Amino acid sequence: MPYYHKMAKPQIAQTNKYNVFRCLVREGPINRAAIARLTDLSIPSVMAIINNFLKKRVVRSVGKGESSGGKPPEMLEIVPDCFFYIGVDVGRTTIRVVANNMKSEQIAHINEPTGVPFPEKRFVGRLCGLITGIARQLNAGADRILGAGIAMPGLIEKETGKVLFSPDFGWSDVPLKEWLQELLPFPVFVENANRALALNEAYSPDEENHTSFTVNLGYGIGAGLVIGEELYIGASGTSGEIGHITVVKNGPVCQCGNRGCLEAVASGEAIARQARELVRQGGAAKIAALCGGNGHGIDARLVFQAAAGGDEGAARIIDRAAEYIGIGLAMAVNVLDPDRVVLCGGLMKNGGDFFEKICAALQKHKMRQSSRQMVVTAGKGGEYSTANGACRVLGSNLWWERALPI
Amino acid sequence: MPYYHKMAKPQIAQTNKYNVFRCLVREGPINRAAIARLTDLSIPSVMAIINNFLKKRVVRSVGKGESSGGKPPEMLEIVPDCFFYIGVDVGRTTIRVVANNMKSEQIAHINEPTGVPFPEKRFVGRLCGLITGIARQLNAGADRILGAGIAMPGLIEKETGKVLFSPDFGWSDVPLKEWLQELLPFPVFVENANRALALNEAYSPDEENHTSFTVNLGYGIGAGLVIGEELYIGASGTSGEIGHITVVKNGPVCQCGNRGCLEAVASGEAIARQARELVRQGGAAKIAALCGGNGHGIDARLVFQAAAGGDEGAARIIDRAAEYIGIGLAMAVNVLDPDRVVLCGGLMKNGGDFFEKICAALQKHKMRQSSRQMVVTAGKGGEYSTANGACRVLGSNLWWERALPI
Repeated sequence: MPYYHKMAKPQIAQTNKYNVFRCLVREGPINRAAIARLTDLSIPSVMAIINNFLKKRVVRSVGKGESSGGKPPEMLEIVPDCFFYIGVDVGRTTIRVVANNMKSEQIAHINEPTGVPFPEKRFVGRLCGLITGIARQLNAGADRILGAGIAMPGLIEKETGKVLFSPDFGWSDVPLKEWLQELLPFPVFVENANRALALNEAYSPDEENHTSFTVNLGYGIGAGLVIGEELYIGASGTSGEIGHITVVKNGPVCQCGNRGCLEAVASGEAIARQARELVRQGGAAKIAALCGGNGHGIDARLVFQAAAGGDEGAARIIDRAAEYIGIGLAMAVNVLDPDRVVLCGGLMKNGGDFFEKICAALQKHKMRQSSRQMVVTAGKGGEYSTANGACRVLGSNLWWERALPI
Repeated sequence: MPYYHKMAKPQIAQTNKYNVFRCLVREGPINRAAIARLTDLSIPSVMAIINNFLKKRVVRSVGKGESSGGKPPEMLEIVPDCFFYIGVDVGRTTIRVVANNMKSEQIAHINEPTGVPFPEKRFVGRLCGLITGIARQLNAGADRILGAGIAMPGLIEKETGKVLFSPDFGWSDVPLKEWLQELLPFPVFVENANRALALNEAYSPDEENHTSFTVNLGYGIGAGLVIGEELYIGASGTSGEIGHITVVKNGPVCQCGNRGCLEAVASGEAIARQARELVRQGGAAKIAALCGGNGHGIDARLVFQAAAGGDEGAARIIDRAAEYIGIGLAMAVNVLDPDRVVLCGGLMKNGGDFFEKICAALQKHKMRQSSRQMVVTAGKGGEYSTANGACRVLGSNLWWERALPI
């Protein structure tokens, strides 16, 4: 609860405008009376706001609705392409850029291999090129682009959008937001990639207020908590680092410098590393056959393939990873009590009973009396979920800063 | 972010009233212009609200303040005893009841041994007697008592205030709020005791927006997260169960039914159990001497005493507990990124370097690059911190339900 609920007149006016706008995005086509009901505004207030929207071509009429007795009401909807969000998923292997319209429909995308992220400033220049490239595809002036949200793996400083530390990129203290903002004519926001993903996966059209914990199981392991529609960020901006909780005392060394982190025993890279070790020791014949004897060629996908083909060594590695992921999730569930846990990331694409095994370990290790209504699901956002999440980060920041140009 | 920021006119009026009220509580004595500035309200609005408060004797004048040029302004303050909060800490060994005034000053308290909490309904009747007892001490009509907040160990159902499961009390599915509400003429709210404690410990007069994680290290282990001034509750109301995260795979059986929980290896009861075991095996001479050979008499306090006297077996048990508490805290810190961790509870009263050892283990096991500004402190709220927290739970619920009778 913020200490003073500040509500000066201009803020009330703008909040009312936003509420009508969001109501149109979410519920449209809809008539004025229904908007007034949903937003708790008076009909004259709604009419004044809508008139302004109609003038600015942010809203359009789509004919008459059903009458509830009197004359049939005019139905209104948002003009989907009145504004655009740009979202960038700066992945370890691929950069994905999307442009979404006001209904969160993806209307353009660009992919390209990430390549070498050095020197940092030149790489940021490339990101800028991709953003302006997709902006050009939209055939819209800069004033119709609301901004760019950037989803970046690593620790992001909350206030500045600086990348404090990104093991995936080998970056330290890169002022990503500042550099991009110098180059672009619209607002830029930088968020941790796992949190951007979590924000997208948590979105549900059912309007229920959920507490969702989304875990990204890939080359690394990270997570994000979304309460209602709001992302939990933490005090400094480094929340969600479930990959670096200790699950094996004095276990293998992790990228972060500690030992026995969840990421060091259960991430895609950890699975691959254990398989390479096994092959070197002469075990796991199926894995050895699949990689043609080239240990360096072993990745997690191949270990899953070998396990599916009956390789017991591969199966043991995967079972162990699922068990540790379940233990890690159980910790988070005990502390956070979410009603939804969403499992995403590369490891989830390998099929088999990996998902079921994680669920079983989670149920076994969580406090059994707590979070009884909790549901565990696989992510539904697909390949562009993180980039779409970056668009949502942008939207949410603009909302909080009351900076939507309407 | 709630989906629609509903702000119908009556709600705005009431929110404004609350803001003025809270501003007076927090900043008073204060003049009208300063209130207007802090709450972003117009001076006429503030004047109207204050006039109403003066009429109801909720506010009083305390003379003239310093002039800033014109005539000296009238200084106002809340009448501290215009209303009272009652808070109840239903502890395993002691029930503590407090009455606080509007400035959160404790003006009455009652203690009594908890005794046998069965039959549940009779025990709830006793609680009711204690509450009406302290209410009588206040010499105030029921209309001046804002309600009672109950801090209860165990899992509390969010919507109903039902005690789902309380291992400390051996209770399951006890409709605590409903039973008390039937007996009392003012609102009752039930909250988990660790979260009530967290809410009290998180309160700081510096107005900074902190993210505090407060851990109660006692007979059991539990925690609460407070974001700004708001308690994080979770989806079903069972958040903060850090005592039941697995820290030792296949470790000792825990009260919750799982194995290797933090509580099963590092709580006061776990420390005592390990010492009893050691004494049975003929080790830990100092502990044996201190308890006069009666193993049943061993509690955590005695183990700390023996360790302070040089007993190596006792010291090992305590060091191990500190290490596991640090591991558990590191997990929570990685996921939650708080800027404050507060350590409370019986185990913290034993002095020595227990606190320092926990801090060292936390720093060692947390992701070193994250939460760099985090501060770890010992709780400052004292014996009545949980009961005072129960008053804050009440205040916060009344605020959200807009049910303060002013």
